[in-house]
Amino acid sequence: MADASLLETFANPHPGRDYLIEHTVADFTSLCPKTGQPDFARFRIRYVAADRCIELKSLKLYMQSYRSDGIFYEDVTNAILDHLVAACAPKWMVVRSRWSVRGGIRSVITAQHGHPPA
Amino acid sequence: MADASLLETFANPHPGRDYLIEHTVADFTSLCPKTGQPDFARFRIRYVAADRCIELKSLKLYMQSYRSDGIFYEDVTNAILDHLVAACAPKWMVVRSRWSVRGGIRSVITAQHGHPPA
Amino acid sequence: MADASLLETFANPHPGRDYLIEHTVADFTSLCPKTGQPDFARFRIRYVAADRCIELKSLKLYMQSYRSDGIFYEDVTNAILDHLVAACAPKWMVVRSRWSVRGGIRSVITAQHGHPPA
Amino acid sequence: MADASLLETFANPHPGRDYLIEHTVADFTSLCPKTGQPDFARFRIRYVAADRCIELKSLKLYMQSYRSDGIFYEDVTNAILDHLVAACAPKWMVVRSRWSVRGGIRSVITAQHGHPPA
Amino acid sequence: MADASLLETFANPHPGRDYLIEHTVADFTSLCPKTGQPDFARFRIRYVAADRCIELKSLKLYMQSYRSDGIFYEDVTNAILDHLVAACAPKWMVVRSRWSVRGGIRSVITAQHGHPPA
Amino acid sequence: MADASLLETFANPHPGRDYLIEHTVADFTSLCPKTGQPDFARFRIRYVAADRCIELKSLKLYMQSYRSDGIFYEDVTNAILDHLVAACAPKWMVVRSRWSVRGGIRSVITAQHGHPPA
Amino acid sequence: MADASLLETFANPHPGRDYLIEHTVADFTSLCPKTGQPDFARFRIRYVAADRCIELKSLKLYMQSYRSDGIFYEDVTNAILDHLVAACAPKWMVVRSRWSVRGGIRSVITAQHGHPPA
Amino acid sequence: MADASLLETFANPHPGRDYLIEHTVADFTSLCPKTGQPDFARFRIRYVAADRCIELKSLKLYMQSYRSDGIFYEDVTNAILDHLVAACAPKWMVVRSRWSVRGGIRSVITAQHGHPPA
Amino acid sequence: MADASLLETFANPHPGRDYLIEHTVADFTSLCPKTGQPDFARFRIRYVAADRCIELKSLKLYMQSYRSDGIFYEDVTNAILDHLVAACAPKWMVVRSRWSVRGGIRSVITAQHGHPPA
Amino acid sequence: MADASLLETFANPHPGRDYLIEHTVADFTSLCPKTGQPDFARFRIRYVAADRCIELKSLKLYMQSYRSDGIFYEDVTNAILDHLVAACAPKWMVVRSRWSVRGGIRSVITAQHGHPPA
Repeated sequence: MADASLLETFANPHPGRDYLIEHTVADFTSLCPKTGQPDFARFRIRYVAADRCIELKSLKLYMQSYRSDGIFYEDVTNAILDHLVAACAPKWMVVRSRWSVRGGIRSVITAQHGHPPA
Repeated sequence: MADASLLETFANPHPGRDYLIEHTVADFTSLCPKTGQPDFARFRIRYVAADRCIELKSLKLYMQSYRSDGIFYEDVTNAILDHLVAACAPKWMVVRSRWSVRGGIRSVITAQHGHPPA
Repeated sequence: MADASLLETFANPHPGRDYLIEHTVADFTSLCPKTGQPDFARFRIRYVAADRCIELKSLKLYMQSYRSDGIFYEDVTNAILDHLVAACAPKWMVVRSRWSVRGGIRSVITAQHGHPPA
Repeated sequence: MADASLLETFANPHPGRDYLIEHTVADFTSLCPKTGQPDFARFRIRYVAADRCIELKSLKLYMQSYRSDGIFYEDVTNAILDHLVAACAPKWMVVRSRWSVRGGIRSVITAQHGHPPA
Repeated sequence: MADASLLETFANPHPGRDYLIEHTVADFTSLCPKTGQPDFARFRIRYVAADRCIELKSLKLYMQSYRSDGIFYEDVTNAILDHLVAACAPKWMVVRSRWSVRGGIRSVITAQHGHPPA
Repeated sequence: MADASLLETFANPHPGRDYLIEHTVADFTSLCPKTGQPDFARFRIRYVAADRCIELKSLKLYMQSYRSDGIFYEDVTNAILDHLVAACAPKWMVVRSRWSVRGGIRSVITAQHGHPPA
Repeated sequence: MADASLLETFANPHPGRDYLIEHTVADFTSLCPKTGQPDFARFRIRYVAADRCIELKSLKLYMQSYRSDGIFYEDVTNAILDHLVAACAPKWMVVRSRWSVRGGIRSVITAQHGHPPA
Repeated sequence: MADASLLETFANPHPGRDYLIEHTVADFTSLCPKTGQPDFARFRIRYVAADRCIELKSLKLYMQSYRSDGIFYEDVTNAILDHLVAACAPKWMVVRSRWSVRGGIRSVITAQHGHPPA
Repeated sequence: MADASLLETFANPHPGRDYLIEHTVADFTSLCPKTGQPDFARFRIRYVAADRCIELKSLKLYMQSYRSDGIFYEDVTNAILDHLVAACAPKWMVVRSRWSVRGGIRSVITAQHGHPPA
Repeated sequence: MADASLLETFANPHPGRDYLIEHTVADFTSLCPKTGQPDFARFRIRYVAADRCIELKSLKLYMQSYRSDGIFYEDVTNAILDHLVAACAPKWMVVRSRWSVRGGIRSVITAQHGHPPA
């Protein structure tokens, strides 16, 4: 079950500069809450850190924790954004999910927290 | 015959945040109103929901309902935008159709409702 | 309904030489016989003519005649091969269909008549 | 010889909305006015219609009417823009031509009429 | 748990001709038997049917049944080949799996049953 | 009008070795003999010379000489092969033409003279 | 030796409209001034003409005149911009060079004259 | 060990014009400070010089000097930016690193110094 | 220093069938024995196992053990093949290395042990 | 002027095994013997060494020595093959040159010495 407590952070090594961090998780899978069928997506997470950065291994484990959850595309994308924001309080963050075709339709969901620094 | 009543919606799970939803329907087909020849297109629908989101299976059935309709590129793109806007009243929506080559010409039609949120 | 009588042929302009003819029909659509859902495919037809060649406009109309037919991938690919062979009696012919993803699976069916000339 | 009278238009089916129409003509050919050698280009026409839209079949015939004309890249691109603007009086139009390599140089010419609607 | 009894077949509609059937399952996932970490692969199944063909929906469900199994790349590829051969007794079959990068290494496993018909 | 007398040759500089020469003519245009509409193709010519090689500038002019000819795909491909063979008497030659989409169908014609040297 | 006097111009055929001209020279070569080793680049020149346009054949000859010159990436890119500006006095021009890898590093230099018209 | 003293510069040959310089270092490698495992990245450096430009061979040697250093993605990207800025005092510089997949995650880090000239 | 003792194997789970195993190691680095400069390559290893298979994690560590070795392209490719053959005694194995450009030249070395099973 | 004496070789480090060596020289330039215009090509050299291998730096210098030579495509490809064969006496060698477009035609020349080992 999705577990935000898996997320770990480390101190931003260059807090004096606004720089961009991007992580792409190629293989994400969860379940369709209506049919129980597996869903597959590629997630891209982009952010400007404040004091804390997301630790990569913990991010992998957190993303894997959705494997048995039934959850809609729109819901999981926003939930992941909320969890990551709670974990590292970034200046700005965007989470985008790109889903495998279902019923002949490909979906992409993009959610943002804050505004990109100037 | 195109049937907007096929469209169903569900409550936006994160109404407090403006986020982007994109659905690409790879295989759309209708008929040319002048010649009766089949036309083929790829539609991309992008929107920011207000209170309601478009349900995916109903979107598939709605798009299939054009299969026997004779309708121009410009017309069907605007009609689909109108139907989707009526169904879910989004803050912003763009519908784009990219048609297979006819007479050596490839056409792309893009129609927009409202303005993208800041 | 599929209508093999739509196929027309013309005399092979170079019957003294075995040469390769290939036609790719990008937008083919039929229906799933179980669910009634539309199927979409790209067909590639390759052959070496004997005395007759397939006329292109008639090929287009013939391929369009499947639009309202419910028929399986394996069946329609073999049926089209049978019809084309009956129409032009080629020395060799291969028909390949590549279908849009359904249920997360992409299918390709390839059927051959005769053997390629040395 | 290039013949702007070939262009036909039809009434814009959605005049109340500014939407984007794009037509790409893959195979255009004219002659070099200095050497008589054939030139080849791909044209892309993008516009927002006011009251009239360009009819596709007439566009094809109009583009073909340059086949025996000797005319420079810069000239023909602007001339086509002028003719199309005269035919349909769009709110905005851009014509871009991308030419096959000559003398090791690939050229692209882009001309615009009006300003894109907000 | 992997369940070969999920596989269903239907009668080959053209048993008199050796033709090629290919199904690509884009999103396959199982677990690493040593670490429990999820593995992801794309499977391609190619075969020439004898009397029975693999039914597509049952193939999808069968492939999904590995979701919670811990199994090595080499093992699962051969196991799937064995199960499919047992289900439809093809004249020839090849199963290929292409795995997501792990430890900087991408692996592809290819197993074959029988020999391709002449 | 197509003029085979435009073709010039030069002495093969390495007649003692069978080596492969390939020329690709990106922009070929002729007319449809039924409708008068322009056709466009990319030609690829591959050969092993005997005593004579095809001179490039003359090849360009020869290919341009089809610009106002009405001729079928199958016919022009074989005719060009015949003319080139007559001009340089190669040990082996293959001519392939790949045509722009017409009526939703892309065609490729491939004709061969002789057999490739061992 | 680089020779700006090779550049020729012709009268802008549509001086009343600001339109974009782009020429890409795929094969440029000069020498490294330190080592004498050949350098290779692809140049892209984009401009909005005032009264004069760059003539293509003269551009080719001008670019070839660097073949035996020893000159740094940064220097030659700016020098070519200066020469072209002197020759045709454009409203705006950008010259970009993209160099083949040397020492595992690929370099791109971009220099601009004036500001793009509104 | 990373050694900023390896960096050499030369006088900007066109200090009167703000132009863009971009260097891409395809093969960078350092070590993970936690596991000692090698990391691999592609770096892209873009800048507008003031009085000094980065010399290419020295850049190569400087980038190689990280080969045995244990350092985090975020840290090394900012450190390289700091060193390059110290060496040539540019008007503006952006350093971007794109890392090979680790744990199924691809990371890209982008750090900027100053603001791009108008 | 390269250490073949790092290689571990496991029992082939399907010894009764000849099937193909392929591992691609994207990021390999060693040193040029003449200049000490780092070299970078992508290795692809393909084999048919007899009784033992190469364990993936040990393969990664083995490949990393070349990081500080000075060794020629031809030499290291053959050495890796020799070590892998010694470790698992395959029925057939091919090792291919594709090196980053040096001096404007890209090299690929391919060495084989035994013959592919029928 | 082309200088075969620039070519150096080194002892084949694994003479007991027939393995494949491939070098691709991306940027080759010579002159057209008729017009004096520069020609550009990408050469690919593949061989199985006997006792000697081609040294890479000497290969680079040898290929550069054609920079001021006027020589036909067919001639230079065979000449380079002859020089390389004379230098290292390989068991088998293939030289292929792929030339930049001239007069709308792209040419590829492929010459072979000996037969590939079994």
